[in-house]
Amino acid sequence: MSNNPNISSHNAVVLHGAQQLVVERVETAAPGPDEVQIAPRATGICGTDQHYYQNGRNSIYEITEPLILGHEAAGEVVAVGSQVTNIRVGDRVTLEPQQACLCCEHCLDGRYNLCSRMRFNGSASAKPPVQGSLQERLNHPARLVYKLPDGVSYEEAALIEPLSVAIHSVRKARIHAGHSVLVLGAGAVGLLCAAVAKASGAASVAMVDIDEARLEFAKDQNLADVTYTRLPGGEGQTGLKVDAAFECTGVEACLNACIGATTAGGRVVIVGLGRPMQTLNLGLAVVREVELLGVWRYANTFPTAINLLAAGRLDLKSLVTHRFDLLDAEKGLQLVLGREST
Amino acid sequence: MSNNPNISSHNAVVLHGAQQLVVERVETAAPGPDEVQIAPRATGICGTDQHYYQNGRNSIYEITEPLILGHEAAGEVVAVGSQVTNIRVGDRVTLEPQQACLCCEHCLDGRYNLCSRMRFNGSASAKPPVQGSLQERLNHPARLVYKLPDGVSYEEAALIEPLSVAIHSVRKARIHAGHSVLVLGAGAVGLLCAAVAKASGAASVAMVDIDEARLEFAKDQNLADVTYTRLPGGEGQTGLKVDAAFECTGVEACLNACIGATTAGGRVVIVGLGRPMQTLNLGLAVVREVELLGVWRYANTFPTAINLLAAGRLDLKSLVTHRFDLLDAEKGLQLVLGREST
Amino acid sequence: MSNNPNISSHNAVVLHGAQQLVVERVETAAPGPDEVQIAPRATGICGTDQHYYQNGRNSIYEITEPLILGHEAAGEVVAVGSQVTNIRVGDRVTLEPQQACLCCEHCLDGRYNLCSRMRFNGSASAKPPVQGSLQERLNHPARLVYKLPDGVSYEEAALIEPLSVAIHSVRKARIHAGHSVLVLGAGAVGLLCAAVAKASGAASVAMVDIDEARLEFAKDQNLADVTYTRLPGGEGQTGLKVDAAFECTGVEACLNACIGATTAGGRVVIVGLGRPMQTLNLGLAVVREVELLGVWRYANTFPTAINLLAAGRLDLKSLVTHRFDLLDAEKGLQLVLGREST
Amino acid sequence: MSNNPNISSHNAVVLHGAQQLVVERVETAAPGPDEVQIAPRATGICGTDQHYYQNGRNSIYEITEPLILGHEAAGEVVAVGSQVTNIRVGDRVTLEPQQACLCCEHCLDGRYNLCSRMRFNGSASAKPPVQGSLQERLNHPARLVYKLPDGVSYEEAALIEPLSVAIHSVRKARIHAGHSVLVLGAGAVGLLCAAVAKASGAASVAMVDIDEARLEFAKDQNLADVTYTRLPGGEGQTGLKVDAAFECTGVEACLNACIGATTAGGRVVIVGLGRPMQTLNLGLAVVREVELLGVWRYANTFPTAINLLAAGRLDLKSLVTHRFDLLDAEKGLQLVLGREST
Repeated sequence: MSNNPNISSHNAVVLHGAQQLVVERVETAAPGPDEVQIAPRATGICGTDQHYYQNGRNSIYEITEPLILGHEAAGEVVAVGSQVTNIRVGDRVTLEPQQACLCCEHCLDGRYNLCSRMRFNGSASAKPPVQGSLQERLNHPARLVYKLPDGVSYEEAALIEPLSVAIHSVRKARIHAGHSVLVLGAGAVGLLCAAVAKASGAASVAMVDIDEARLEFAKDQNLADVTYTRLPGGEGQTGLKVDAAFECTGVEACLNACIGATTAGGRVVIVGLGRPMQTLNLGLAVVREVELLGVWRYANTFPTAINLLAAGRLDLKSLVTHRFDLLDAEKGLQLVLGREST
Repeated sequence: MSNNPNISSHNAVVLHGAQQLVVERVETAAPGPDEVQIAPRATGICGTDQHYYQNGRNSIYEITEPLILGHEAAGEVVAVGSQVTNIRVGDRVTLEPQQACLCCEHCLDGRYNLCSRMRFNGSASAKPPVQGSLQERLNHPARLVYKLPDGVSYEEAALIEPLSVAIHSVRKARIHAGHSVLVLGAGAVGLLCAAVAKASGAASVAMVDIDEARLEFAKDQNLADVTYTRLPGGEGQTGLKVDAAFECTGVEACLNACIGATTAGGRVVIVGLGRPMQTLNLGLAVVREVELLGVWRYANTFPTAINLLAAGRLDLKSLVTHRFDLLDAEKGLQLVLGREST
Repeated sequence: MSNNPNISSHNAVVLHGAQQLVVERVETAAPGPDEVQIAPRATGICGTDQHYYQNGRNSIYEITEPLILGHEAAGEVVAVGSQVTNIRVGDRVTLEPQQACLCCEHCLDGRYNLCSRMRFNGSASAKPPVQGSLQERLNHPARLVYKLPDGVSYEEAALIEPLSVAIHSVRKARIHAGHSVLVLGAGAVGLLCAAVAKASGAASVAMVDIDEARLEFAKDQNLADVTYTRLPGGEGQTGLKVDAAFECTGVEACLNACIGATTAGGRVVIVGLGRPMQTLNLGLAVVREVELLGVWRYANTFPTAINLLAAGRLDLKSLVTHRFDLLDAEKGLQLVLGREST
Repeated sequence: MSNNPNISSHNAVVLHGAQQLVVERVETAAPGPDEVQIAPRATGICGTDQHYYQNGRNSIYEITEPLILGHEAAGEVVAVGSQVTNIRVGDRVTLEPQQACLCCEHCLDGRYNLCSRMRFNGSASAKPPVQGSLQERLNHPARLVYKLPDGVSYEEAALIEPLSVAIHSVRKARIHAGHSVLVLGAGAVGLLCAAVAKASGAASVAMVDIDEARLEFAKDQNLADVTYTRLPGGEGQTGLKVDAAFECTGVEACLNACIGATTAGGRVVIVGLGRPMQTLNLGLAVVREVELLGVWRYANTFPTAINLLAAGRLDLKSLVTHRFDLLDAEKGLQLVLGREST
């Protein structure tokens, strides 16, 4: 342990391999000139965290050195670097976990989510990894730190990251006022897609999930207008003819249902990432020019999310379901594991 | 007067020239195979009607034969042609007043509002004119007639036509969730632009008008978040930096204020048509790539408007301010004349 | 046979069922007021014709009454209807074979190729079918008839229809000056996609086919810059990183090769329609936001094709490979059958 | 003068104020880790340089400390920083003169040309200024340095910067294959707009200039299909109906001519920056939804330009008209002054 006053020693929830989650002491240096130091107050847990915890890997990325999870974070600023002007100590903030190179063709074209040199918090994709927010201190570039509007709690703010996925998805879907929308999967991301679609003017949202309680919740929150546990007509052409469908389950049959339920010229946005190889009813998509559009994270969404929350256009409070102390993070991960993935 | 049972004789408000408005009997034949016959129950009056009434002309179009005004209409279907399947007698409907050729390059490209062979109800632009709805019977192509959602009154439905202008304008402005918006002019079209922008996810709407009562109304209706009787900073660069501005007054100084108040890369939508020649601060637009986008009527907006009203996403009730009997149409026109144009 | 001078009796190549192709006499009435009568001088034969000929059906459309094939046509005008002003007797013309309803949501939105009431020449999809051009007389709506530029032969003009598919595909691919392009399949449509991509500014075109002679031809015609009989790296991620790929073979492995060879954020345009169900490397598309965009026929392409040919921007002469007399149409169909589909 | 071997002392053409151009010795340090050091071999001179030279200012930017002009540059790499991997000593290169912040909303959205913290070579807009290329040594960020394709001379390469303006303008105009185009002003930028429009598939280019020799040159180079010294019909509605017009003169009457000559729904791209306040025929633009789109510099154009040159899709050789030695730069500036601005 350092005695250097510029280095703080604090607790972190460190993953050393599959299901090897340890609370231990780690050190964080003072923030660099363009960084702020944050004391995380809330961190959301998503499917990525779960994959790392359960399998020691997420997709092609394997844990080869200790990894601190957590990329859906909000907290309080405890220190700021010498060049930082947009953030002050004491500010309540959220952080965008995407550190793109800013210089490659994708970054320069406004699609930095596609940057091949992306460094993402709480992920083993970069070497060494960029550590996540399941710890008591975290340095982050000031340009990726956003002040929270009054009235937005840390817990809601931790949802701004998955909300960003929904904002990005709705942009891909080119939703305009009056459109009809279908959402497959009433988990957090599906609900957020519905919420953003409604905020963007969608006149009707149909939602599908095998879990009736989730559908009930979606209706109660006014996020779904009609719900199905099974689409009418099954996987083929259904009675629905929506302008855009959001596939949030990663299940092949659901993706085909989206294709069948989308009107000619419409968009199917692939939000949930399932098995790489999927057998699709491509004919049904091609002859009606239904576009198949995958989404990978998000770009330029945090200011949008902040604006919507500040204006009261979205209410995330009801989406926070369970709370755990940092030292009990493993309980949270196990809870997520026990539920269906979204 | 015909004794032919297929021809109905009824009252109409006929404009014979500048300020020569006469209530007289006219005849309407039975609807053609693809037409429906409507008994108008409500007709809105706008600036175009006022121009015809006051000057006997609107822009380059002069009244050369009797003209029945009225293109913002809703009514009850009293007869349908032999080929009509989408509409039935007794239906409560609104009608789109744009009969485009459907075959020219603009029509085929989805921009039928730019059709040079357009025939528009209540306008002297076509020869002979297509008569408007200020009469007791009107035939109209069934494909341009839309059933009203339950709960939408005839009076509200008569606002679907100006609402269409607002929908078209918001599309041009490429409004997305989280955007900030400026509206110049708090008349009917300005309020409708604000309403559609909000329904499309605009996080903040600033509104400018010289009439404080109008601004008060906009705030009361939650259509404006901030209001000004005079933009801070005057006509030049203001403190505002909105994503899109809607100029609904036709006043040159207001258009320049829009340019100054729009962020780099933003859009100024020119909704209000003022004098043809205007002196603009083009430099301020060019060096920041602020786009200047005029709108002319609308295309593909009626289904959108119906969807939004059916879903309760817009409430037009409060925008209906005065009501006149058909036979008192002139009083309505004079009332409009007495107010500032919007 | 009619003695009515307004009805002409002439030869036609009529398909009565699978491989039942008969040259027989048919009658064609005088053109209607908005029609022109054409004496076809050249008709191209494509995969659709081949499917009807070989199987008596194309996809879900079965021949239930005699069908005259031919939708890639050019000819001489022999009569015009009373209302026709854009075309005169003696004009050399080509015809767009798509009679859309013009009134549905897709038509009004500029995407009439998606019209569900489409009537297409030489296809069994409409009942009764719209007869094709493998006959000596054909009436067609004047609005769908285009005069040929000087110097464009009937044979070249018969290629304007498949060229339209290529123009539509290149638009979907959003090709801009400087882009790199991959084309799978060096048949007629693949070559036309390459030609239009080059005319649209593509700086490099790579082409893949198993037939080396086709690739050689593509290089000779300056339509391909590099060619492969097998993509480097196989079906997975290749060394290529093109902005857009055109899949013109209908083969699943080729579609996956396109996904792998397209850069993040790029477009894969699915031009060739293979089996409806295909197993795709969706993961590879989604994590890099590669769009999968099917094309179905075309819209608003004939004027573009005419402009390009008139300006000498495209040269179709070399693409005409075999010629048959109308009465020998079956030989042409059999020739196509003997080659690989594109 | 430094004896530090890491600092080179060399000639530069330094502007100390209006018409105070001095050749003097300056020093340039070794390149930083991410920089390369270039020995400029060719520098183009444009209207901006001329304004600084003649008036000591360009628009709102005044020379307050010595300024080395030159932002259209190509040269040889003489040293590279320790972190540079894309460029080597001896490489023949061109450089993009735009150093954007990469972090602001515009940069992150792919429109870095709108960055308010832009640092531009040879301009007084930043304090201290970023020096230009009219000197014998220049350090520049490696990420903004591009290797020249074989066969592209330094002189042609110096035209890549104005070519970038043309590429950006053509993108704004949304030119597709088959479009018709009008260019006002046959100077370098107008010719480059025509060249890029043609490379992007424009089927016809009309060009207007008062100088017949320029028009003759444009026709000889196959950049213009038709030319006018005066548009038919004058400033109002002309016989032309182009899809897009490029205004490259900065003259108000020319901009109005563009509006009148553009088809409904078309684009007028404002490339030439004239007086800030201009009196426009806005009515003619609005009622036909002709978009008025200014361009400010360019973004993401250098790779496109390099691709086009490498592929032989553009030929810039003929556009290089006069050559001066660095020490004779003033002669070049005076030559430009003697000609009409473009």
